[in-house]
Amino acid sequence: MAADLTGRHVLLTPGPLTTQLRTRQAMLKDWGSRDNAFVSITTELRQRLLSVVNASATHVAIPLQGSGTFVVEATFATLIKPDDKVLILSNGAYGERMIEIVRRLGRAFVPLRWPEHQPIDVMKLNRTIAQDRTISHVAFVHCETTSGMLNPLEQVASVAIGHGRGVIVDAMSSFGALPIDLSALPITAIVASSNKCLESVPGIGFSILHKNAIAAVDQKSIPSLSLDLYDQWRGFESNGQWRFTPPVQVVAALTESLRLLDEEGGPTERFKRYQRNFLTLRTGMEQLGFRMFLDAAVQAPIIATFLPLEDINLIFEEFWIDLHERGFSIYPGKLTTRDSFRIGCIGALVPSDFDAFIEACREVVGVKRGAPIR
Amino acid sequence: MAADLTGRHVLLTPGPLTTQLRTRQAMLKDWGSRDNAFVSITTELRQRLLSVVNASATHVAIPLQGSGTFVVEATFATLIKPDDKVLILSNGAYGERMIEIVRRLGRAFVPLRWPEHQPIDVMKLNRTIAQDRTISHVAFVHCETTSGMLNPLEQVASVAIGHGRGVIVDAMSSFGALPIDLSALPITAIVASSNKCLESVPGIGFSILHKNAIAAVDQKSIPSLSLDLYDQWRGFESNGQWRFTPPVQVVAALTESLRLLDEEGGPTERFKRYQRNFLTLRTGMEQLGFRMFLDAAVQAPIIATFLPLEDINLIFEEFWIDLHERGFSIYPGKLTTRDSFRIGCIGALVPSDFDAFIEACREVVGVKRGAPIR
Repeated sequence: MAADLTGRHVLLTPGPLTTQLRTRQAMLKDWGSRDNAFVSITTELRQRLLSVVNASATHVAIPLQGSGTFVVEATFATLIKPDDKVLILSNGAYGERMIEIVRRLGRAFVPLRWPEHQPIDVMKLNRTIAQDRTISHVAFVHCETTSGMLNPLEQVASVAIGHGRGVIVDAMSSFGALPIDLSALPITAIVASSNKCLESVPGIGFSILHKNAIAAVDQKSIPSLSLDLYDQWRGFESNGQWRFTPPVQVVAALTESLRLLDEEGGPTERFKRYQRNFLTLRTGMEQLGFRMFLDAAVQAPIIATFLPLEDINLIFEEFWIDLHERGFSIYPGKLTTRDSFRIGCIGALVPSDFDAFIEACREVVGVKRGAPIR
Repeated sequence: MAADLTGRHVLLTPGPLTTQLRTRQAMLKDWGSRDNAFVSITTELRQRLLSVVNASATHVAIPLQGSGTFVVEATFATLIKPDDKVLILSNGAYGERMIEIVRRLGRAFVPLRWPEHQPIDVMKLNRTIAQDRTISHVAFVHCETTSGMLNPLEQVASVAIGHGRGVIVDAMSSFGALPIDLSALPITAIVASSNKCLESVPGIGFSILHKNAIAAVDQKSIPSLSLDLYDQWRGFESNGQWRFTPPVQVVAALTESLRLLDEEGGPTERFKRYQRNFLTLRTGMEQLGFRMFLDAAVQAPIIATFLPLEDINLIFEEFWIDLHERGFSIYPGKLTTRDSFRIGCIGALVPSDFDAFIEACREVVGVKRGAPIR
């Protein structure tokens, strides 16, 4: 029995994920949302978010209540004007979600799609932008949680910026671990949430908006009060408070988790830990006969998509239960084209957690293959 | 020194407020949002929300990520079609916020206003509805947190329903304490949040929608993906899961707080406790020379608005600090017409907390009046 002996249940999911106890303990206090102590936390949170992507001089951080999707929608609702048109690059479910968001908002868009196993093709992007001067913004997902695909952030953003277009990036599952340096790359908006590589609990997202984008907002064209990031930003700037009741405990937890990120050595060190987690996972799973969906060259060490075994019929729901009994939660696949399942490498986890997970998989697969249980 | 000796800081605010430790401790665990254990919590949450207002047979409960304003907007976005028109009854800031929400959504509306100290006039409402057949819905705030005003829910809803119009109620600061019985009153939508009379932490709201309203939704006219309550509901009904990442700890805390409401004896007993809190507060404050803004007949025992003392110049910011040092957070006023401050009577508080608060006020006011500190 390789399950975690501390009684901790290990979430191998893309978030909500396994957090540190210190992060959860930050939620044990009641905070008055307009008290100075909480205003200080909000200010620290906003500053720390900018530091993660080296954006303190160029951007502003605007946290928003809700899940990641809420703040993706809020970013489009705030920045995209009725005369704008968004080129949406999609190679997975979260690119498709951007399309649905912009469609609902009634703004013009052009989708440009690739299969789920192919990264965004920068040459094709370049040709598409060059041919359509009405495209005002390019939007894409940095790390597609659908597959684990890493899209080439710098190249995509550079092409769009080179053509003078705005750039909106869903960095939901990369922010805090994969290298993003906004001081070198004047991206219009980077959007992410509390509960992925920042390793906090879910409940807020945030948009890191370029100061030029804030200055260019046309507030009367924003079709939502709740999702108006300009108004949200003005609230923070005027008195340090949230416009509408913030989830105070979730805000305190995210601030604590950003302190923990700092203590770990920042995104560089966190990325290295996730790489070690991922390599431990991949090596172990391949020894058990599992193959990965993506080529190694485009695989981010964030979430890994595995294909079903070919020699035995491993039903996902049964596999999930067998592993859950051993202390691990895995995640269903989201590919449109074939069966798969996913294992997250992120959260407050280290390679020994993945060693233990591989042992659990070895047991479960061994039983299916008729091998003796060790 | 009358401050709370347990070290607990007492929030006398309309929320986020003082919660029970058991509610906060429910946040110490990491939950996989698609795991069966969490699906069970969500199911229990939705059932318990319906029970609070006796709506299990007639309505569905749809929790939504975000603050109360998010779910008010989501309710309008989901229910109000392009051809509809909303009569919005307003006697405070939250009535005005409804107007702003509907204006942003681009839907037709008519405002009908009263001063902040006057409840909604049902006769005038009746005449207005009778004269305008294009009004499809009537919307209003049950307990106006601006002042503490209790609007006559049953009479307002009965008039609107009698004319065959839909009724949307912002019951943010009444749900869980003031009597609401939806089995007797087929209200279209009741909207509230986790962090007021349910005494949980902020981070989710919910809309209790009549089944007929769900059946009549025209999904293609909903201008937002995040705020689409119909899609949110379909998610819950299809597999018991949230469409988009839920704030798992906040959901667990709200479920725990609903168990605590049950253990207390339900909304009836909670209302009695709030009444005792309010009477302790009012009696004590009046002895110190403070006068209330509202007439007793329209004052809910939820939040009390006090006028400044007439004999001394009590500056709110100083008063706030003096009381904060003694362990209490009070709340600024929100009246448009005159200076005031507010004291919440809700949260995990009992009359002895208000006795202690009155003692703290007596000290602070005594110093200002030049009396010796006892």
